[in-house]
Amino acid sequence: MTKSFVGSSYGMKLVRALRLVLGRGEFALHEPTFGDEERRYVLDCIDSSYVSSVGRYVELFETQLAEYVGVRRAIAVVNGTSALHVALKVIGVGSGDEVLVPSLTFVATANAVSYCGATPHFVDSSFKTLGMDPESLADWLSFVAVKSRHGSLNIQTGKRIKALVPMHTFGHPCDIEDLARIAYDYKLRVVEDAAESLGSFKDGRHTGSFGHLSTISFNGNKVITAGGGGAVVTNDLKLADRVKHLTTTAKIPGGFGYSHDAIGYNYRMPNLNAALACAQLERLPALLESKRRLAKSYAATLEDIEFLSFVREPRNCKSNYWLQTVILSDEATSYSDEILFTLNKNGLGSRPAWDLLNQMDFYKDCPCAPLNSSLELARKIINIPSSAGLA
Amino acid sequence: MTKSFVGSSYGMKLVRALRLVLGRGEFALHEPTFGDEERRYVLDCIDSSYVSSVGRYVELFETQLAEYVGVRRAIAVVNGTSALHVALKVIGVGSGDEVLVPSLTFVATANAVSYCGATPHFVDSSFKTLGMDPESLADWLSFVAVKSRHGSLNIQTGKRIKALVPMHTFGHPCDIEDLARIAYDYKLRVVEDAAESLGSFKDGRHTGSFGHLSTISFNGNKVITAGGGGAVVTNDLKLADRVKHLTTTAKIPGGFGYSHDAIGYNYRMPNLNAALACAQLERLPALLESKRRLAKSYAATLEDIEFLSFVREPRNCKSNYWLQTVILSDEATSYSDEILFTLNKNGLGSRPAWDLLNQMDFYKDCPCAPLNSSLELARKIINIPSSAGLA
Repeated sequence: MTKSFVGSSYGMKLVRALRLVLGRGEFALHEPTFGDEERRYVLDCIDSSYVSSVGRYVELFETQLAEYVGVRRAIAVVNGTSALHVALKVIGVGSGDEVLVPSLTFVATANAVSYCGATPHFVDSSFKTLGMDPESLADWLSFVAVKSRHGSLNIQTGKRIKALVPMHTFGHPCDIEDLARIAYDYKLRVVEDAAESLGSFKDGRHTGSFGHLSTISFNGNKVITAGGGGAVVTNDLKLADRVKHLTTTAKIPGGFGYSHDAIGYNYRMPNLNAALACAQLERLPALLESKRRLAKSYAATLEDIEFLSFVREPRNCKSNYWLQTVILSDEATSYSDEILFTLNKNGLGSRPAWDLLNQMDFYKDCPCAPLNSSLELARKIINIPSSAGLA
Repeated sequence: MTKSFVGSSYGMKLVRALRLVLGRGEFALHEPTFGDEERRYVLDCIDSSYVSSVGRYVELFETQLAEYVGVRRAIAVVNGTSALHVALKVIGVGSGDEVLVPSLTFVATANAVSYCGATPHFVDSSFKTLGMDPESLADWLSFVAVKSRHGSLNIQTGKRIKALVPMHTFGHPCDIEDLARIAYDYKLRVVEDAAESLGSFKDGRHTGSFGHLSTISFNGNKVITAGGGGAVVTNDLKLADRVKHLTTTAKIPGGFGYSHDAIGYNYRMPNLNAALACAQLERLPALLESKRRLAKSYAATLEDIEFLSFVREPRNCKSNYWLQTVILSDEATSYSDEILFTLNKNGLGSRPAWDLLNQMDFYKDCPCAPLNSSLELARKIINIPSSAGLA
């Protein structure tokens, strides 16, 4: 049997299983769900003429998002990448610093570190959560970091390790409490990348409420969308004010003119996008229920397939199941490309995990922990059709 | 007579003159105009479910914008600031470079330079155009710059002067051809900041078609708006491809996964915003006509006021009259605050020019030419209600 024959027979077996859940038709990896409220709010926004930097939907969305996440403040911004950039900026990440990020994440997590003039320092992820692994992080830091009064130094590079950016992969909460304990021990600030995990909870607390600052994305492929959009959330009112200030060009209020007290950013979310976001936030509970139903159906149906396992929410977690995920068995891993090809050819939008960031040319010289699990996960993960409304 | 009495009597005289044009009511400095098309396109976008990074409105807008400006390519981005940032980036502005920018401009022009790790180098503006003054620029460069084979060096700082960023202030075209000649002479790249000048022409050519790359803003206060939004326009197809690539996270196309070949940015304009922008671009000719009518009325009515002059389009130019502008006489300049206060108190949204950038704390140590005209302009300029539809 040729490799491609074996691979596509694996693929067809998965296609048939997914069809039991999805029925006939073509299904994207992830599509948003809109209804009358979205149309109504956006039209109301246009009719008000306040489509841009000022408007009631931005304020409403910030208030309702903070309430939902269970934090004191939310600041709406233009996307998740800008949220990460400004979050790192306000905790003082700057030129010459290192920031610990998972190697298995979307490139924005590391890019935001680079925008600050700092260097991403890649660490391993866990099979249990798909997020940063506390055990291997602790091992690595005990080897590479030396604690000092004001933080930790990387003894290999001589640079200050300033912060830790755990990410909740595909919506599954990582071991954020253990990671936060390690961060505390090494005097690292925690910026929680909750880009993918709106609606996900760990021990009853919403992801994004653990870090000094956390970031959320409302890109078109996320659980809810603002077209483009993101947010920084935090319980620290001083940091929140600073984020709001820096994301609105650091303009000094008062007077008729324009004066600024820092190099700021044009990162505010337009009111037009906030109008869409408000309607989507109202719809979130229903979307989450639907995604849980889909996960339940997938879990039951895929149980019989011997060459993969369906990823369920970690212990003590409630996941938003943003992207439904399977992990291939050792045997099937080498057929990953053929399986993906077969799924997509049959109209089932699927994709692998991100290429590991430490393997990209422009990050290959960055500091990097041993990545045993990440290397394996990157080859074994397949995301399958995940839109709310599929079950 | 107290100062405040004199100032408010100047102010009331201006209020009465503006009322002759505007009639009764409250008028913002600048408001957008929306109609059925805006509502229809945005709803169509929501109904398509493509509200985010992919969608036909982004492509349509890019095509129609390039056609309108008369360039080969337009790349839609999230706002004018991001457009400037990426434009400077692709022409190679980096750490240790200097970039010549007017001191009299919105802070984003200089901030974009800073984002590249470079230093803004401030130059003077002209009373004739309110934009960068070619004569004083030539004088200053002959004093401060030494030409070398690959560019010019600032002999005071030892840094490379890499580029020139002229801006078309309030929509009035600056002396872009003369400035481009000087840039050519000193081997400087030209990034034309056309944030405010969509619909403005110099010698029959649209502003934004002169620079190696040019940038446009579609912020809510601009002649047309996308809620938020911006664009890079250029005739250089290679630079255009590079801009598109860097603004879409430098993702390598092909395959099912995510690989990237550079530190990119999440700067793409969401399709939702592009839908609004498409409708607005169709409306642009009518808006421009309306703004010209308003300028004509203002010019006629304000002719009799001895303590100011109304700013008309420069010679051989057709201005979009984005923000209608008066310049106070020497005598009235010291009453500028009282005049602004009186205008706004009487419901006529007005504002002064931006504070000069070289005077802001975080830019005060940057290289700076003599700024005779800018200093005067910054104290004398008042923008008055400018929305299309006011005349």
